[in-house]
Amino acid sequence: MQKLRGIVPPVVTPMNEDGTVDFESLDKVVDHLIDGGMAGLFVLGSSGQVAYLTDEERDQVIKRTVERTAGRVPVLVGTPDLTARRMVECARRAVALGADAVVVTSPLYALNDMAEIEEHFRIVAAGVDVPVYAYNVPVRVHNYLAVDMLVRLGKEGVIAGVKDSSGDDVGFRRLVQANKAAGSPLELLTGHEVMVDGMLLLGADGAVPGLANVDPAGYARMWEAAEAGDWVSVRDEQDRITKLFEIAFVPKGMSGDAGGIGAFKQAMASLGVIASGAMPAPIRPLDDSCKPAIEGILREVGLLA
Amino acid sequence: MQKLRGIVPPVVTPMNEDGTVDFESLDKVVDHLIDGGMAGLFVLGSSGQVAYLTDEERDQVIKRTVERTAGRVPVLVGTPDLTARRMVECARRAVALGADAVVVTSPLYALNDMAEIEEHFRIVAAGVDVPVYAYNVPVRVHNYLAVDMLVRLGKEGVIAGVKDSSGDDVGFRRLVQANKAAGSPLELLTGHEVMVDGMLLLGADGAVPGLANVDPAGYARMWEAAEAGDWVSVRDEQDRITKLFEIAFVPKGMSGDAGGIGAFKQAMASLGVIASGAMPAPIRPLDDSCKPAIEGILREVGLLA
Amino acid sequence: MQKLRGIVPPVVTPMNEDGTVDFESLDKVVDHLIDGGMAGLFVLGSSGQVAYLTDEERDQVIKRTVERTAGRVPVLVGTPDLTARRMVECARRAVALGADAVVVTSPLYALNDMAEIEEHFRIVAAGVDVPVYAYNVPVRVHNYLAVDMLVRLGKEGVIAGVKDSSGDDVGFRRLVQANKAAGSPLELLTGHEVMVDGMLLLGADGAVPGLANVDPAGYARMWEAAEAGDWVSVRDEQDRITKLFEIAFVPKGMSGDAGGIGAFKQAMASLGVIASGAMPAPIRPLDDSCKPAIEGILREVGLLA
Amino acid sequence: MQKLRGIVPPVVTPMNEDGTVDFESLDKVVDHLIDGGMAGLFVLGSSGQVAYLTDEERDQVIKRTVERTAGRVPVLVGTPDLTARRMVECARRAVALGADAVVVTSPLYALNDMAEIEEHFRIVAAGVDVPVYAYNVPVRVHNYLAVDMLVRLGKEGVIAGVKDSSGDDVGFRRLVQANKAAGSPLELLTGHEVMVDGMLLLGADGAVPGLANVDPAGYARMWEAAEAGDWVSVRDEQDRITKLFEIAFVPKGMSGDAGGIGAFKQAMASLGVIASGAMPAPIRPLDDSCKPAIEGILREVGLLA
Repeated sequence: MQKLRGIVPPVVTPMNEDGTVDFESLDKVVDHLIDGGMAGLFVLGSSGQVAYLTDEERDQVIKRTVERTAGRVPVLVGTPDLTARRMVECARRAVALGADAVVVTSPLYALNDMAEIEEHFRIVAAGVDVPVYAYNVPVRVHNYLAVDMLVRLGKEGVIAGVKDSSGDDVGFRRLVQANKAAGSPLELLTGHEVMVDGMLLLGADGAVPGLANVDPAGYARMWEAAEAGDWVSVRDEQDRITKLFEIAFVPKGMSGDAGGIGAFKQAMASLGVIASGAMPAPIRPLDDSCKPAIEGILREVGLLA
Repeated sequence: MQKLRGIVPPVVTPMNEDGTVDFESLDKVVDHLIDGGMAGLFVLGSSGQVAYLTDEERDQVIKRTVERTAGRVPVLVGTPDLTARRMVECARRAVALGADAVVVTSPLYALNDMAEIEEHFRIVAAGVDVPVYAYNVPVRVHNYLAVDMLVRLGKEGVIAGVKDSSGDDVGFRRLVQANKAAGSPLELLTGHEVMVDGMLLLGADGAVPGLANVDPAGYARMWEAAEAGDWVSVRDEQDRITKLFEIAFVPKGMSGDAGGIGAFKQAMASLGVIASGAMPAPIRPLDDSCKPAIEGILREVGLLA
Repeated sequence: MQKLRGIVPPVVTPMNEDGTVDFESLDKVVDHLIDGGMAGLFVLGSSGQVAYLTDEERDQVIKRTVERTAGRVPVLVGTPDLTARRMVECARRAVALGADAVVVTSPLYALNDMAEIEEHFRIVAAGVDVPVYAYNVPVRVHNYLAVDMLVRLGKEGVIAGVKDSSGDDVGFRRLVQANKAAGSPLELLTGHEVMVDGMLLLGADGAVPGLANVDPAGYARMWEAAEAGDWVSVRDEQDRITKLFEIAFVPKGMSGDAGGIGAFKQAMASLGVIASGAMPAPIRPLDDSCKPAIEGILREVGLLA
Repeated sequence: MQKLRGIVPPVVTPMNEDGTVDFESLDKVVDHLIDGGMAGLFVLGSSGQVAYLTDEERDQVIKRTVERTAGRVPVLVGTPDLTARRMVECARRAVALGADAVVVTSPLYALNDMAEIEEHFRIVAAGVDVPVYAYNVPVRVHNYLAVDMLVRLGKEGVIAGVKDSSGDDVGFRRLVQANKAAGSPLELLTGHEVMVDGMLLLGADGAVPGLANVDPAGYARMWEAAEAGDWVSVRDEQDRITKLFEIAFVPKGMSGDAGGIGAFKQAMASLGVIASGAMPAPIRPLDDSCKPAIEGILREVGLLA
């Protein structure tokens, strides 16, 4: 796989009302994203609600996405599980189904220190023959991947890059500088979806914004403006997207997995990209007042007529 | 399965130096615990390092434990995975292999609220036909199971009991009182291993102490004294066991999964119960200075000559 | 001051509707507590809402309490402020007004490690000539006082005792054992108000329960039963008090400073101990539905006819 | 006071080896900062180690700073204390000594919800007749000031601006957008010292970077480039400053108050701005190996020959 540069959205997994995967909608999402200018697709991430899928469903999602993508862009696959040897099993299945790379978190349930987490990544990487991206997502795995560890793993060829969803921009900046000083072994992708302008300005190689499921073209324009060095346009596009992000604050008093992704799915349904905003059990669905509020925001930012 | 009353240790999984399961030592652990007076065995819990086992290894551990136990006591099995439908798959495999009950945590990786977590337990319980115990372990799953939810699930027959490893004794006491007020539908087991005296005094039906792997007979004596209403003896036994628990503080600067269980395994090896204190990768092993310090404590409390 | 043994409540500060201190009610609280069998009074603690008082008001509360107490029991005084030299100023004022001892927390606002916190206690203790009690209250100061540090400070005569409001009973038990092994230099008081039975069983020298403002006689009976070794009666009294503690859960959706102390004050007002449950600005008062619910619980446990 | 725009450093408080304030060095710091192009001075902030000063020392620092500044730029003064009425007392003293504005945090020690914190700011603002800036500093006060509350307080004229040291850039961006939509009642200053480029790009009115004590001219250049719309230069200057910020990571294993500010003070001493890097008790001083490492970084970024 070539170096990734640009926007690589974590692909939403559309569902039917009974919680099964809606594969026709998934095909439409894939086309929507690639046509929207995305540089790659990341399936089975947090936005893909991977936690709620069985292994069989995971396999089907990978297979369908790879088929529909048909080589137009690389497909990265998430492998969340409890620990390294279990993740190797996930990763190998993904590779067999066509994954171009895998995206690997810290262990779950386990209580490890950073030295053990470093060894964890070495074990996973030794078990697969595609590039491994380290996925820094403290809100879900409850630890933060240390800058020096990541750069060391990059220099040694253990990992190819980092998807940073920590929201810690200081840490990300320090990672960018340390990576540069080490000869840039790592591709550094930010998941910080309403600060992509600042992250590109300071040197990110790309972004992995969940919100790009709703507005891939907006993110693509931002990326192109950044490539052209037109930072005012980058910022203005991000400001527009930040207004769009207010859809995530429409649902009130909902769980972390219900509100944000629920809003993204409702917006995608309103835009006709997917058939419905259905969510997997036991996630509570948005209440009825959310749809008009979300559509109001879609209109405000010019996505809905 | 009859109501559990007494001590139900979370069974340590002995390993060979290469990280594979040491089944001969596992047999010895099973006998050590049952001979020590334990009322049941809980395999594939945190102390069993379940996070580091593959599904195949989990199955083997269940199978071997069930065979060796041979009906002498009930065997409870942990099913940690990301979400409900995945846990149902784990639970069904466990039941097929002879589990008498399953022990189920909140979801991992997912970000749910309490209403969603309640539904999570309903989904798991609907998928299996053995008793389900809710496992309250905030340090690993990052949420706390609400008292009113647990009692409601008990009254409706969804769950049979609770294993409380929260360390929140106020919450446990409120749970005991609320359960009593509801007609005691739940069996309430504390995992609070150095406060078992206080928890029995306030009404726990039993305990699930990791340290019972090292000293089952001590916990059995404590249980019998409690049954006899001899609270001074209960407290004195707990004080002795608390001294033993200092083995968990011998390792310094180690991760949550390396220090405590590492010390338990070393103690069991020093006592001849298991062949070695080997730990699964990537957990850092204890350094050499720990063994004499741990054995000193074993001598102090009368477990080692 | 002699060694403290028994129940030492953190005295509630009654207020008028305009937020000024209601000194007549304060006199009644002092009598209520001493007549109820309390071994000492702790003023200007968290339950005393010390954070909301000016220095002048603090002085007046100390002065009035000392006068009304008139030597019947010792008066301990809290000195919360940002750091050591500021606390020395608070402590000296308290001593000048008649405090028998001071109760000192970790620094606020500051970000210190345990070695710095140890030095903090040394600075405060060097600045006053009454006994210093270390006040372990992580929920407010965001750190936990280490067992070995506390015992060392006790052995060196820096501190006389510990008021533990951490809710960490394992830590408290380890502290009790380490203190005993060191020759018991420290008096160890638990603030763990619904686990006083267990804490006395394991060796606490007394308790500092906020709820004793509502029911001092209940706690006094528990203490006497513990002194007599009648642990079943201790537990039964604690169970009754735990039911009373449900008043703290009556207020819903309120802040940490509004709900619990608000309920205690309402209960004291309903019992006629204080004139009203008034709270200092900006704390939100209980809503009207709370009073009947609280009085229902008071009746259930036999405090209200 | 006119609207603040530009860089307003939180002024370090230089000390003598015995912990008393070094007023001659303070004069030099004031000149260093104003000559370096700063738009205002913020004394008695976290970088000023306000927590460790007595009220008398606070007064002296305000007085000396106001005198030395002599109206060249506005002087803002921090007023950390436990709650609102206590902070009013601090704020009035500061105003009497010449403060142009006060900078006010959430309560300390208290446990309030956002409605109570909003009322807290209303109480403080009603008590003084200079502009009030809300200081959002979760790492020290353990809560986060809500965007909607801040904008409401701005619209009603209660607060004049916000100093945001939360490190939450998404929240800051949402605040900037909400403030703009409300007619920009608030001046919005970021304390996010290694992301000032991104924060200026998205619309901050200025910055409050502790590191500006070491390199005011660098931050002034960044500000001017931003005013000129030269975002590549802004970024390059920030990258240089980020390298300088590595001095904060030189001290290892130190407390939050010892490492970062200790490094800033050592750097200022190495640059000849202050007489020494002395720290107040009980903060542990940097060990000897830090000085050469810090000076190496100062050389690398061109501040030291």
